[in-house]
Amino acid sequence: MLSYRLSSPVKLTPVTEHDLAHFSKFLQPSSIISTLSPNPSSQDELAPYNSDWMGRYKGHSTTVLKPKTTQEVSEILKWCNAKRIGVVPQGGNTGLVGGSVPVNDEIVLSLSNLNKVRSFDPVSGILVADAGCILESLTDYVAPHNHIMPIDLGAKGSCQIGGNVATNAGGLRLLRYGSLHGTVLGLEVVLPDGTILDQLTTLRKDNTGYDLKQLFIGAEGTLGVITAVSILTPPAPQASNNVILALPSFDNVLPLYQTVKRHLSEILSAFEFIDRTAYDLAVKHGQGRALSEDDVEGAECFVLVETSGGRREHDEEKLSDLLELLLSADKPLVNTGVLSQSPAQFSSIWALREGVTEAVSKEGKAYKYDISVPLSSFKEVVDNTREHLRSKGLLHDKAVKFVLGYGHVGDGNLHLNVCADAYLPEIQDALEPYIYEVVSKYRGSISAEHGIGAMKTHALPYSKSATSIELMKKIKHIFDPQGIMNPGKVLE
Amino acid sequence: MLSYRLSSPVKLTPVTEHDLAHFSKFLQPSSIISTLSPNPSSQDELAPYNSDWMGRYKGHSTTVLKPKTTQEVSEILKWCNAKRIGVVPQGGNTGLVGGSVPVNDEIVLSLSNLNKVRSFDPVSGILVADAGCILESLTDYVAPHNHIMPIDLGAKGSCQIGGNVATNAGGLRLLRYGSLHGTVLGLEVVLPDGTILDQLTTLRKDNTGYDLKQLFIGAEGTLGVITAVSILTPPAPQASNNVILALPSFDNVLPLYQTVKRHLSEILSAFEFIDRTAYDLAVKHGQGRALSEDDVEGAECFVLVETSGGRREHDEEKLSDLLELLLSADKPLVNTGVLSQSPAQFSSIWALREGVTEAVSKEGKAYKYDISVPLSSFKEVVDNTREHLRSKGLLHDKAVKFVLGYGHVGDGNLHLNVCADAYLPEIQDALEPYIYEVVSKYRGSISAEHGIGAMKTHALPYSKSATSIELMKKIKHIFDPQGIMNPGKVLE
Repeated sequence: MLSYRLSSPVKLTPVTEHDLAHFSKFLQPSSIISTLSPNPSSQDELAPYNSDWMGRYKGHSTTVLKPKTTQEVSEILKWCNAKRIGVVPQGGNTGLVGGSVPVNDEIVLSLSNLNKVRSFDPVSGILVADAGCILESLTDYVAPHNHIMPIDLGAKGSCQIGGNVATNAGGLRLLRYGSLHGTVLGLEVVLPDGTILDQLTTLRKDNTGYDLKQLFIGAEGTLGVITAVSILTPPAPQASNNVILALPSFDNVLPLYQTVKRHLSEILSAFEFIDRTAYDLAVKHGQGRALSEDDVEGAECFVLVETSGGRREHDEEKLSDLLELLLSADKPLVNTGVLSQSPAQFSSIWALREGVTEAVSKEGKAYKYDISVPLSSFKEVVDNTREHLRSKGLLHDKAVKFVLGYGHVGDGNLHLNVCADAYLPEIQDALEPYIYEVVSKYRGSISAEHGIGAMKTHALPYSKSATSIELMKKIKHIFDPQGIMNPGKVLE
Repeated sequence: MLSYRLSSPVKLTPVTEHDLAHFSKFLQPSSIISTLSPNPSSQDELAPYNSDWMGRYKGHSTTVLKPKTTQEVSEILKWCNAKRIGVVPQGGNTGLVGGSVPVNDEIVLSLSNLNKVRSFDPVSGILVADAGCILESLTDYVAPHNHIMPIDLGAKGSCQIGGNVATNAGGLRLLRYGSLHGTVLGLEVVLPDGTILDQLTTLRKDNTGYDLKQLFIGAEGTLGVITAVSILTPPAPQASNNVILALPSFDNVLPLYQTVKRHLSEILSAFEFIDRTAYDLAVKHGQGRALSEDDVEGAECFVLVETSGGRREHDEEKLSDLLELLLSADKPLVNTGVLSQSPAQFSSIWALREGVTEAVSKEGKAYKYDISVPLSSFKEVVDNTREHLRSKGLLHDKAVKFVLGYGHVGDGNLHLNVCADAYLPEIQDALEPYIYEVVSKYRGSISAEHGIGAMKTHALPYSKSATSIELMKKIKHIFDPQGIMNPGKVLE
């Protein structure tokens, strides 16, 4: 297994039994898990908090605190700030860049016990919820009111809304509902010194000074702890449909995107790209099947189009008219297209796209890059990476088996996966900084939606200028002069 | 005429002929307008830059600079920062809170000559434009590519995109396309020391550290000068329809909003509220006419619903079905509704809503409050304000003639207008801080979309906590330690 370089750049103090005695004055016993006396927990109990789900990052925290109120969070931070004890806020711990795992022996501050919905207004659709609410349970909460959450992602069953906001999660609905910078209306944040910053407004519009809450969206817990979120939930669409399209050439993806946007307009809710390698791998590992062998003959890549709209018959008419137009064209942009006819087919088409991750993990060890580059360069980036690995003699059964790409065309977000027999230093060295340099050349982003975490702090300059990084450091210093918040993350 | 209290809190230096000599080294003669030697302009030439369009704010600037490049902006700021000369960035100067007028003798930095489109990608819809581009000309620019700007407002013919972003303008399309915090993808900003902060990304997703550009959105030029904007433009709808509905009671507005949202879903693009007083005034001054006398009999208020969608016949079907449902209900929420049947009728219905401003100005002097309060309290706020003025003996022909409300229900944004025979100190004193206290009681916003400018700096604490204001000041200090940027605006 490959270990990423971790660093704890500031001088912080480890938790002691004295600190624990203080915390036990205001926290219930069940809110403290620690290997320190007086009631030491086992290392096993700490393990899930000290490691990410991929097993890539390992911390050495002795103590996990699980406060039940914002006031408790405030008391914890005030103490830690005075004592210079590092604090790692942790939500569902479903991140991909090691952002919610300690780099050393910081306290893990789990938000799991802050899990109540505070209010929901069915007229405006504004939901106010504690940070520890699980995304899926919020989706379930607003469903009877005919609303949906503006974000959706694979980890919805475990990720928490506070973590979603702290990491500025993107996901599957961004094309339609925009980013959290637009949908989050307010935040309650506890600053490192214990001050509760109440910006938990339920106003859709408030133009009074600098929009401070924006800084916490995507700061990955380095500026303070988000304890509650006010978010605008859109009305639930009445119908969803999808279609999978096989394209003879990647060059057709962009013209297709334009055509689809024009014809589906406001009901377009996803336009996802899967290259041939990714498709074949998904099918090989049983991740959905929608197209026959004949259909995929000669297809260089695939596109999944989803619609979500207010009236089923209107949406179906728009989608089938589009398909007819595409297939009857003189020079068709697609070889074939299959429209889902049932909920089962709808899921099966999505499984082709969403199953790529699982297929890759069954096939070997994955190096995953989540980048933003111009739409037109998706194929070039994947092909060049493959050729680069070939030129290094690394493209064979015992090293890199596949290089593949898939992602959100509508968002310019490419998931570049390098699937290898095993994690090898020479593959790692061939990929980095190679890929970051490619991204930088395109003025792209080295992290479109996964964030920086502990994984990419060293690579930040590929996406951000020295001036920007300097300003970020100054802002960090305003909010967290002691440097206790999530040390070693985002900024080196 | 009422003069608002203005203050220039920092010690700044006036421009001298020596400074002008420096500027003329890199600026063309046409880019300098100054009453100072060697080629003094007349006061008249300076006047439009020294005053807002309502004539409420007057500055005493001797010098206007109109740079043509970002580099020139940088040179100007670098010099002013070293010399501690105040700088007021000015776009179309269409604001309502005195944000773009000098409070004293600062330099006016007009962005009007930075007016080129830098790029437009018809596939992604991403537009990159100089800050000085006029909103309407950008709308015209993207129209042939079947795109629209995500914002639209009354001042579109003169306001500039840089000013829109700097003031976080809301406008008529916010319900549909969200705020600029979501649609602006990148900014180029010149910091007070002349550093060019290039965050002019055309990426829809970039999750690499703190989203600094968000700070400049709504900062009203107090942190730096926006010189270019990258913005996501949505596909143009193929059809727009509207309907005006007369309601017997304000209590029906919210149930109506829920019904309309459920039935029109993604094609709903405006839901505007006009109270009876506002409606009558608009009709009196010839601002559109859509309803007969019989129709408005007994109506307490009116709602304008607009749809924008991808296919006319689908949209019309949805809208007429909705109207039928509303009118055939057992207990109808509306007395009547008139659907526009032609472009002329469509405009006439909009004129009822958009013409309120002009009608009010024809009727007398207006005190305008642009506030966010809970939807359910719109009527209460208007009625209570009227009663409050009555209790002060100010509701008569020679003082306050009308108190009326209209606004964007979908955004929770009420425009509360007090129409008086003349601007009188006793009216002003009766209204403030009364209205700010009401807003504060509802945890609302004292400025939903107009900003703070010079007008409301003293009122900021009604909407923002002391902690927030303290953090804003620290952020201001990071970016502008000399305090040269738009002094006296936003923060006192």
